[in-house]
Amino acid sequence: MDTSKFAIPEIIFGHGAIKHVAQCALRLGARRVLVVSDHGLERAGWVEKLFDILAYDGLEWVYFNDVSQNPRDYQVHNGAEIYLEEKADVVIALGGGSPLDMAKGIATIAGNGGRIDDYERANRIMRPLPPMIFVPSTAGSGSDISQFCIITDMQRQVKMSIISRSLVPNISIIDPDLLLTKPPELVVSSAIDALSHAIESYVSKLASPFTENQALNAIKIIITHLEPAVETRSVHHLEQLSIASTWAGMSFSNASLGAVHALAHSLGGVSDIPHGLVHPILLPAVMRYNMPECLEKMATIGNIILGPCIRSRQDLAAMGIDQLGEFFKSFGVPVHMREIAPDDSKLEHICRMALQDACMLTNPRDADWKDLLGICLEAW
Amino acid sequence: MDTSKFAIPEIIFGHGAIKHVAQCALRLGARRVLVVSDHGLERAGWVEKLFDILAYDGLEWVYFNDVSQNPRDYQVHNGAEIYLEEKADVVIALGGGSPLDMAKGIATIAGNGGRIDDYERANRIMRPLPPMIFVPSTAGSGSDISQFCIITDMQRQVKMSIISRSLVPNISIIDPDLLLTKPPELVVSSAIDALSHAIESYVSKLASPFTENQALNAIKIIITHLEPAVETRSVHHLEQLSIASTWAGMSFSNASLGAVHALAHSLGGVSDIPHGLVHPILLPAVMRYNMPECLEKMATIGNIILGPCIRSRQDLAAMGIDQLGEFFKSFGVPVHMREIAPDDSKLEHICRMALQDACMLTNPRDADWKDLLGICLEAW
Repeated sequence: MDTSKFAIPEIIFGHGAIKHVAQCALRLGARRVLVVSDHGLERAGWVEKLFDILAYDGLEWVYFNDVSQNPRDYQVHNGAEIYLEEKADVVIALGGGSPLDMAKGIATIAGNGGRIDDYERANRIMRPLPPMIFVPSTAGSGSDISQFCIITDMQRQVKMSIISRSLVPNISIIDPDLLLTKPPELVVSSAIDALSHAIESYVSKLASPFTENQALNAIKIIITHLEPAVETRSVHHLEQLSIASTWAGMSFSNASLGAVHALAHSLGGVSDIPHGLVHPILLPAVMRYNMPECLEKMATIGNIILGPCIRSRQDLAAMGIDQLGEFFKSFGVPVHMREIAPDDSKLEHICRMALQDACMLTNPRDADWKDLLGICLEAW
Repeated sequence: MDTSKFAIPEIIFGHGAIKHVAQCALRLGARRVLVVSDHGLERAGWVEKLFDILAYDGLEWVYFNDVSQNPRDYQVHNGAEIYLEEKADVVIALGGGSPLDMAKGIATIAGNGGRIDDYERANRIMRPLPPMIFVPSTAGSGSDISQFCIITDMQRQVKMSIISRSLVPNISIIDPDLLLTKPPELVVSSAIDALSHAIESYVSKLASPFTENQALNAIKIIITHLEPAVETRSVHHLEQLSIASTWAGMSFSNASLGAVHALAHSLGGVSDIPHGLVHPILLPAVMRYNMPECLEKMATIGNIILGPCIRSRQDLAAMGIDQLGEFFKSFGVPVHMREIAPDDSKLEHICRMALQDACMLTNPRDADWKDLLGICLEAW
């Protein structure tokens, strides 16, 4: 085995855990924090609750909420300017993947200067970032755990993957209560994003014993708990999805991802498609493409999806992928790319752009743009 | 579920990973490091190898090797004085649990002043420690992962448990090559220490979904790989033991331990018995005592130890514990307390002292000193 690296934030997990946010900030030396969130969290009342918790412990704050569903470079630069002008000392982000990635971008520029595209791809952040505390409101993005930050370069129409150990927040406060205010379709798309993190990182070229177990745990939990979580909205099942998202985050942060995410970033850059919509469409097709290079692992995944059954490894792998497609359909989400992409004229460009994404480096099977086009057409 | 906290160091794992130690130190701002190790590692050539790596990257160092098998309070104070006098800026520890715990003690005093017994029990370290990088040479102590530091108070004859998030090193470099120079009996006692960490933390009152999976992974790996590791000395099996020790460390660092460790600390304080000798003797007896409070979990452990079989949960639990005793015997280690303890006249004192140990707080079944005495007599 080659050298494996494994880094995660300090995690505080549990119902009502958000109440610890001010004490965590104080522990990191905060006096005046930058809070990053968005309108959805404001409407659900969580932003105000966060302010109350900060005020109770005597912390000052500046608020930033200019966050698109695919966070943009100029928003990052504006946020960093506010952080510096207002002399903030800690960044607190509350929300789904978008506010969390925005906060990472802001912290990167606040600590390192320059422009966010200076840090595209892996290991280009050289100076320390301000301390970061993240409170995720979805069980899926994994941004609260990971070394990844995805920001759209508006001029090039590219979602840049910025990857650095420095992007792991200091503390992640995971409070499943935040999921109770989310609509079912967001619970589903977030969980499928987490499932995609788990499956892509499990078969990644960088997978290690430290990431593989966590990926398998995440797959098992999501396959078991997503349907009852959506149907019953019970705290127990939602909590399990939070746990699964955390496991998946630990896995992909350290083993990276593959072609599904490379294509999802490319699609999001060109067409501003919400990230969560892409996975149920592309994951089965990419798994079929990758299968020859990782049959044993695909069979292990198939065994989890299908449950106990006696089949050849080949059959377990192939039938598992088919069953995963049925699993996605059962939630009523789009499973054909034609349902979300405007037309097929941009597909070649999208596939050529995806080849540049850092996630392609760890896809288990090599691919050129025509291979990716084949995947997209299979999913069309 | 109550709030769970989970913190681990950054981990760099793999054959030859020790070569990264200087770069890691530089990343943490080092110019002149304090190296803590012991005579065993010197004889095996690892200390010199470490110096070569530091020298190659232009780092200066000061060396400290006054480390007993149960590290002592005055040694900690001497080491901290050297750290401060020599103006060191990072602590690097290389060795088994003893040099690692010594390094934690030195860093605590260097960063916080006072005496080491000021920090006994949980959460009493209030100021930051110097950065720490640990290179474990055994697969067992878990000190390279954990929030625990065990130091002997020589006057009171007590092994103090000092527990703080601040005691998690910044970076742990786990290089299974270091195990190749260890005698088989040390491989066995270290692995059984790790197994004890895994089992005690799995049934701990503080166990959470984040620690339970890791504990079970560790138990499975040790049961599977310890015998072939000792017989073949193959790198593959030794690497598996390193992975298991790391999982067990993640689990017990965050879920804490129980009566086996409370008694082991008390025995070590009174009689300077090596820590690793205590577990094969006490673990089965403590598991039998705890069984009524955690039957389901003991059955899950039993299922791993026994392999696939159809039994009641009660039988799985009880037969698993019996089989664990046989497993220990097969390695020729002492399994009766009379083989390591000088006489039984100190047992009452040892049990009364163990009740004061922080590990008793998370033992799944409450116990008074007479209960602990019953356990010791069962294991006598």
